Amino acid sequence: MRGAVIHSANDVRYEDRPDPVIIEPTDAVIRTVAACVCGSDLWRFRGLAPVAKPTPIGHEYVGIVELVGDAVTTVKPGDFVVGGFLHSDNTCVLCEKGAHANCLHGGGFNGCQAEKIRIPNADGTLIATPGMPDDDLVPSLLALSDVMCTGWHAAVAARVQPGSTAVVVGDGAVGLSGVLAAVQLGATTVIALSRHADRQAIALDFGATHIIAERGEEAIAKVRELTDGVGADCVLECVGTEDARLTATECVRPGGTIGLVGVPHGDMPVDALFWKNIGLAGGVAHVRAYLPHLLDLVWKREIDPGKVFDLELPLSEVQAAYEAMDERRAIKVLLRP
Amino acid sequence: MRGAVIHSANDVRYEDRPDPVIIEPTDAVIRTVAACVCGSDLWRFRGLAPVAKPTPIGHEYVGIVELVGDAVTTVKPGDFVVGGFLHSDNTCVLCEKGAHANCLHGGGFNGCQAEKIRIPNADGTLIATPGMPDDDLVPSLLALSDVMCTGWHAAVAARVQPGSTAVVVGDGAVGLSGVLAAVQLGATTVIALSRHADRQAIALDFGATHIIAERGEEAIAKVRELTDGVGADCVLECVGTEDARLTATECVRPGGTIGLVGVPHGDMPVDALFWKNIGLAGGVAHVRAYLPHLLDLVWKREIDPGKVFDLELPLSEVQAAYEAMDERRAIKVLLRP
Repeated sequence: MRGAVIHSANDVRYEDRPDPVIIEPTDAVIRTVAACVCGSDLWRFRGLAPVAKPTPIGHEYVGIVELVGDAVTTVKPGDFVVGGFLHSDNTCVLCEKGAHANCLHGGGFNGCQAEKIRIPNADGTLIATPGMPDDDLVPSLLALSDVMCTGWHAAVAARVQPGSTAVVVGDGAVGLSGVLAAVQLGATTVIALSRHADRQAIALDFGATHIIAERGEEAIAKVRELTDGVGADCVLECVGTEDARLTATECVRPGGTIGLVGVPHGDMPVDALFWKNIGLAGGVAHVRAYLPHLLDLVWKREIDPGKVFDLELPLSEVQAAYEAMDERRAIKVLLRP
Repeated sequence: MRGAVIHSANDVRYEDRPDPVIIEPTDAVIRTVAACVCGSDLWRFRGLAPVAKPTPIGHEYVGIVELVGDAVTTVKPGDFVVGGFLHSDNTCVLCEKGAHANCLHGGGFNGCQAEKIRIPNADGTLIATPGMPDDDLVPSLLALSDVMCTGWHAAVAARVQPGSTAVVVGDGAVGLSGVLAAVQLGATTVIALSRHADRQAIALDFGATHIIAERGEEAIAKVRELTDGVGADCVLECVGTEDARLTATECVRPGGTIGLVGVPHGDMPVDALFWKNIGLAGGVAHVRAYLPHLLDLVWKREIDPGKVFDLELPLSEVQAAYEAMDERRAIKVLLRP
């Protein structure tokens, strides 16, 4: 089969790789229907994270089951399946508590931008759709593999509930998904911080009630204006930089909560949180915990998270997909074999 | 009247002070029935916080209303009242959301170790008991002024719910109150970290299911043993030191939450929290939010948080009270005028 391999910064090649096979009896092998490029894949593409040797890349996928190991019982060859960017057994003590991202027997993927993918822990990772999806549903199903569940995690971690006011910091695919999640969870004021017309349009389409295009102090002042002068109940921090965390801390009201899904670097001043009684929660999304509900919403066409894909390319043009995202010509690129 | 004034480290005097008067129409003046010494008062007594000039001290109290301003409607002269260590209007947008500690028109007290106290925002701060309490209820009513509500805040912030496993770091009066709070909120495993027999006894009396006397790595290993090998759902951090926060981070399971009520110093490594999906919440307790429920429990004699007082002295011996707590001869000292 063929798949993407990153060789170094700015160099992702579509090349021959060995066909994946069943290794453990709990494995499945799927034929990829769609994959995509994640903001986190760009770290290596931009030279911000090292590439020690040529490495298969990608961790988002939907596909059709080709092979299953002897122990797999919930999916079978021919099923269309969605699954998360982390695999999980869905049975360990942490999965039972909903902390699937920290599954005791789970792990990550490498190499999902490929024609076929081996899925460990297939029963605990994949969910079959109720039938073969219409083609126009594929982007939204694919979004469940990472960004939509990550945006959902931000909203859950920020404790969004009916009537909440929420601010979303970050207008990438995850931030936009966070807008959709906050709206679905009942927030009545959802403020998206975004300076880009195309992203603002998606945020509004997802139900944002307000867009703030300003930055820094001006943005914070506008948030206060919209939230009784005190800040929002919930802030979804979908970037990960120190700046974004400080913005989040300024936008949240005393007693409110920041949901953190941008991979953070550096420290956080605890005392600033303490005196304002600000909660902080989040991390890597518990995809498998959220998948059943979100798949149901997508299947019923109640949400359309696939709108974050604004460019589609053949998988063979994977290098062009990375370039489009690197140069911010695309929010998120969908790839089809 | 007479009251405690701290002059410098190790020097708290019981001396003449002006009688408090009604300044704002929302004020009340109470005649103190009992006051006490807080761990945070010891900072100045120990020379860890500066004393610029002689300063009235103390922030915990119960008493009988003597005077009320014209605008006060919910308490009247003769009422026995409990109130928190922060006053609040109980009507601002933050109080409406339960964030009373951050009330837009609230503030702190200075000088409650005295025969009389001026209470600003009386309607939003004080609650009258249903009748004159029996004398043996006074310690538990007094505990509501700070430590019991602070322990409760730790448990609420740590998201303790029925069936939770909880670890309490810190065996001072707040930590012990946290044990009681976690039990009341339905935790089925409540592990107290304590090396002192007298404090262990109170923790067990409050419903702790396990005591761990070890420290450091040994303590963490024992917590893991008691929590399916993964750590506790909830950790109540009732100390505030860097060490205590690190212990909390090691004792909590992935996906769990740390409730922070020890006044923190320094930073917290966000990425350590992120990868384990650990939540962090807490701060200064929202006393007025918790008072009605906790007063009800005390009044019905369903909880007895006053057990944290293991020494009672006349208010005139306030210096001896500070010494007893400083030298750890007492957990918490109750003072009566």
